Amino acid sequence: MSHAPELITDAEHLARILAAVPRLPARRVALADGGWVGDVLGRALAADVCSGVDLPGFTNSAMDGYALRAEDAADGELPVVGDIPAGDTRELTCAPGEAWRIMTGAPVPSGTTTVVPVEQSDGGLERVRFTGEVEDGRHIRRRGEDVRIGDVLLRAGTIIAPQHVAVIASAGVDHIEVAPRPRVVVLSTGDELRPAGEALQHGQIHDSNGPMLAALVAAVGAELVEVAHVRDDAGEVARVLERAVATADAVITTGGVSAGAYDVVKAALIEAGEVTFDKVAMQPGKPQGFGLLGERGVPVFTLPGNPMSTLVSFWVFVAPALAHMSGRPAPVWRRGVVRGPGWTCPRGRAQYARVHAVRGADGELAIRANARQGSHHLGELGEANALARVPREARQVETGEMLDVLVLDGPIDAPLAGAYDENVADEKE
Amino acid sequence: MSHAPELITDAEHLARILAAVPRLPARRVALADGGWVGDVLGRALAADVCSGVDLPGFTNSAMDGYALRAEDAADGELPVVGDIPAGDTRELTCAPGEAWRIMTGAPVPSGTTTVVPVEQSDGGLERVRFTGEVEDGRHIRRRGEDVRIGDVLLRAGTIIAPQHVAVIASAGVDHIEVAPRPRVVVLSTGDELRPAGEALQHGQIHDSNGPMLAALVAAVGAELVEVAHVRDDAGEVARVLERAVATADAVITTGGVSAGAYDVVKAALIEAGEVTFDKVAMQPGKPQGFGLLGERGVPVFTLPGNPMSTLVSFWVFVAPALAHMSGRPAPVWRRGVVRGPGWTCPRGRAQYARVHAVRGADGELAIRANARQGSHHLGELGEANALARVPREARQVETGEMLDVLVLDGPIDAPLAGAYDENVADEKE
Repeated sequence: MSHAPELITDAEHLARILAAVPRLPARRVALADGGWVGDVLGRALAADVCSGVDLPGFTNSAMDGYALRAEDAADGELPVVGDIPAGDTRELTCAPGEAWRIMTGAPVPSGTTTVVPVEQSDGGLERVRFTGEVEDGRHIRRRGEDVRIGDVLLRAGTIIAPQHVAVIASAGVDHIEVAPRPRVVVLSTGDELRPAGEALQHGQIHDSNGPMLAALVAAVGAELVEVAHVRDDAGEVARVLERAVATADAVITTGGVSAGAYDVVKAALIEAGEVTFDKVAMQPGKPQGFGLLGERGVPVFTLPGNPMSTLVSFWVFVAPALAHMSGRPAPVWRRGVVRGPGWTCPRGRAQYARVHAVRGADGELAIRANARQGSHHLGELGEANALARVPREARQVETGEMLDVLVLDGPIDAPLAGAYDENVADEKE
Repeated sequence: MSHAPELITDAEHLARILAAVPRLPARRVALADGGWVGDVLGRALAADVCSGVDLPGFTNSAMDGYALRAEDAADGELPVVGDIPAGDTRELTCAPGEAWRIMTGAPVPSGTTTVVPVEQSDGGLERVRFTGEVEDGRHIRRRGEDVRIGDVLLRAGTIIAPQHVAVIASAGVDHIEVAPRPRVVVLSTGDELRPAGEALQHGQIHDSNGPMLAALVAAVGAELVEVAHVRDDAGEVARVLERAVATADAVITTGGVSAGAYDVVKAALIEAGEVTFDKVAMQPGKPQGFGLLGERGVPVFTLPGNPMSTLVSFWVFVAPALAHMSGRPAPVWRRGVVRGPGWTCPRGRAQYARVHAVRGADGELAIRANARQGSHHLGELGEANALARVPREARQVETGEMLDVLVLDGPIDAPLAGAYDENVADEKE
């Protein structure tokens, strides 16, 4: 009970995990399926998207106007021989001395050398006159002038944003390959846990880790299969684990991994014999377990049950592992500068401090630590939007020091939140 | 046909829209509903979340160990009178001379003055001996030491990230108020359009705006009701619009708003009489229409049909409007510096250039323009991840100049993508 195994570093624990987790196969998404947009948005491309067509696919008009041979405009007035709306599938010819009324995006008849915008004409329907000079070769978009068949339109690894959806839709391909979304089961253990929104008896608490892990799994683009709440019963834990590893690509448990008599996850997994439990030199998040379970070698992450420990353990170990399984880049740690007061940090362990990060107008990422850093202090999370890593050898963090910082949500950098720039909103031209 | 109405500025058009769009009511989400996490993640809180409970809710043990009165430890050995697992709902008392075996998170019996970790004991089940000194008042988390009933845990406006989900779950509340998600119908018009993945005839193109607008609606946190493809028939457009404004909170159309004979959206809406069509001094995106339709005054945005125009119009006009309707902050324009070659820009119109933006290690947001800036050049979108706004009076953009920049996707700043920092991954402690 009192033997203290050697501590390993967080980097060592992560390296073991990344060496062990499997790479899942890429997923083929057919564009003929109605739901493809929702299925690919925010995912990484697993292969280049090369164009299956020239773009434009046919030479077409850039304006609403008249298609003609430029030299005929000198005649003063031309007969309008017909209308060409966008979507007209006829293969037409523009003979000498003729004008066609044509819409933006419609195919120009062969023989056309220019399009005259309707604004530079009398708008005639049977005969047309032009105002001003008619220039040769204007307002025509030529087949393939944007993209040629075979051109690489999007590179593998691109995280698919809305503008890429337009490119994919136009590429003349019937499917794309995207990074897989690992299917994840979350197991939240503990007799003391009750679902959020329910009343509590003395000694009970609301389960915060189950919902938080569900949100974390979604936030990194994985697919949540289930959040199972399991009581403190090693047999039940074993049964639920067995069911989970039969279907999921990864399992995350929280709680039940310390030295206590009721640490049933540990008990169940030591029985299974394929999970290693380590003490990692970090704070919070010391007790960590990882292994591959079942015939398919499904990665199982056993995270400590304090909410702060669960949060930190997810970002430091599970998020990079899920990214690796998907062939996606792992979360980005950036450099930030301590702008609030410094703080004392634990001896002999890397500290993952909860901080508030703000990117200044000059691009500086400034961090302020929460006053308290307890592993059960949920209250502080209202302010925290980032983790800052203090190396193991540090004893004290000083104002002005640079630290590695992981931003945990969008507001400071994402395009979808924050104040609309006054310069744009208020500009009077 | 040839009358040219006065151009208005992009700021003027946006101001008219923001003055007209309604504010939707906040939505109440009950935590007892299983799906609440997916329903609130990434949404803005519409009201503060105040704690309904003290946290911790009861005084409990921070360690697996023994609960006792510290002064009794001097006796050398104490009887273990029982086990207290986490979730034990009994209201127990620790009498003088007794020790209780207690697990992390379990309620400490009244009278307890300290918890001795199991590692500082012989681990006895019937009687226990302690090694080392027993300090009074250790390893006990006191009721309310983290949060008191009524404390503000999360402020209105917070974009709900996974760590906030843990706070909400623990707050002892049965519901929260979140920003509404406007229900949006997209109408993509044009006889020339075929769905992505289908074969094309001469004169036809794949519909890229429909899928892109579906993705854009999702990207800003609104709810997509439907992407309807409508043929170039003013009657059909009118019927689909009527159906859309009966149920949706906003309608976005693309195409059919120029001066052409087949500009059926314009025709249908001029009939309805409640939409204003303007020429906006911007490039791309000149022809813009906006109005409130139907009894409920549903905002309708008519965007030009070129994909670049649609993309720019969405980010410049529709995204701020949907944010305003939701009570969310609008997209953030940041300052970026031109690091590639400069370019010539259009006379008399603000230009929204498609650029590639990269945030450097020093925090600088550096942009490079795509070589071509045509409004139908889909090929360039593979590289573009941002828009840069060049003011109307500019004739030329110079290297080193600062511009307003809107990042269109996460990779440069978001926490979920990019290379894992070598400093962290490779650190050997």
